[in-house]
Amino acid sequence: MAEVVVEVFLKPGVADPEGDATFKALRLLGFGGVTGVNSAKLFRLRLSESDTAKATAEAEEMCRKLLANPVIHDYRITVRP
Amino acid sequence: MAEVVVEVFLKPGVADPEGDATFKALRLLGFGGVTGVNSAKLFRLRLSESDTAKATAEAEEMCRKLLANPVIHDYRITVRP
Repeated sequence: MAEVVVEVFLKPGVADPEGDATFKALRLLGFGGVTGVNSAKLFRLRLSESDTAKATAEAEEMCRKLLANPVIHDYRITVRP
Repeated sequence: MAEVVVEVFLKPGVADPEGDATFKALRLLGFGGVTGVNSAKLFRLRLSESDTAKATAEAEEMCRKLLANPVIHDYRITVRP
């Protein structure tokens, strides 16, 4: 049993309207110290596989097949055994 | 200058249609080893504040005022100085 965290980010240069809107809203709320915001998606997967390397490989394949769009997304996989 | 990562999760018991749909799609794609999926939102904030404690406090306030809805969300703040 492993818990795998997959973070799906937009590639640099891809428009991020949610991040931009969040940035503007934070500035309007008076958070002058914020200089930028990026939004991303996170999935917590529970896998029956307990081997870290195999769980990572399985999550990689899930990203390629479903979770991420390689045209616009980068992703990062973290396994918590 | 600090980079702050804010993860916004749904509280246990709150419906997660995106996580459920992702789980079903992964099973349909043949990933029989997956036993559950939770979806969440992630924000990467860049703050001019470089002190870790102060940056965390600022991000906490941002969560309370904008990033998270306390009725349905839990959040976790990680500072990368």
